[in-house]
Amino acid sequence: MEKSIFYHAGCPVCVSAEQDIIHLIGPQKVEVVHLGNDRGRIAEAEAAGVKSVPALLTPAGHVLHINFGASMADVKG
Amino acid sequence: MEKSIFYHAGCPVCVSAEQDIIHLIGPQKVEVVHLGNDRGRIAEAEAAGVKSVPALLTPAGHVLHINFGASMADVKG
Repeated sequence: MEKSIFYHAGCPVCVSAEQDIIHLIGPQKVEVVHLGNDRGRIAEAEAAGVKSVPALLTPAGHVLHINFGASMADVKG
Repeated sequence: MEKSIFYHAGCPVCVSAEQDIIHLIGPQKVEVVHLGNDRGRIAEAEAAGVKSVPALLTPAGHVLHINFGASMADVKG
């Protein structure tokens, strides 16, 4: 099974969206990546098209930017 | 089963996000409402907190604004 990847940075908007997404899609179908804690994956997220967090990268390679927590510039800063 | 409601307005961003969301959540768990065609539901969407489309209203009453297609002002205009 291909998983989606939920990228976030621990902001309140992110945490709320994370709970919603996991509930909707199912926890076994979503990998959650905290870019603040796992900075080695920032480049991967940007390469996938993530412009802000929280964002959901689908198995088809589409990025769904959800609400708005922080720009990638803020995540890197 | 409580359904989510996906509000959109037919814009290209909306259509792409609709396909992704339906695929991720499952078509039987999402009601799709086209606010351009079903203008009687604009007030309901706004009351639920929808500020722009596409947006997903979860069964818990949370609004996830996904990417950005059009503001509600544009939908009404």
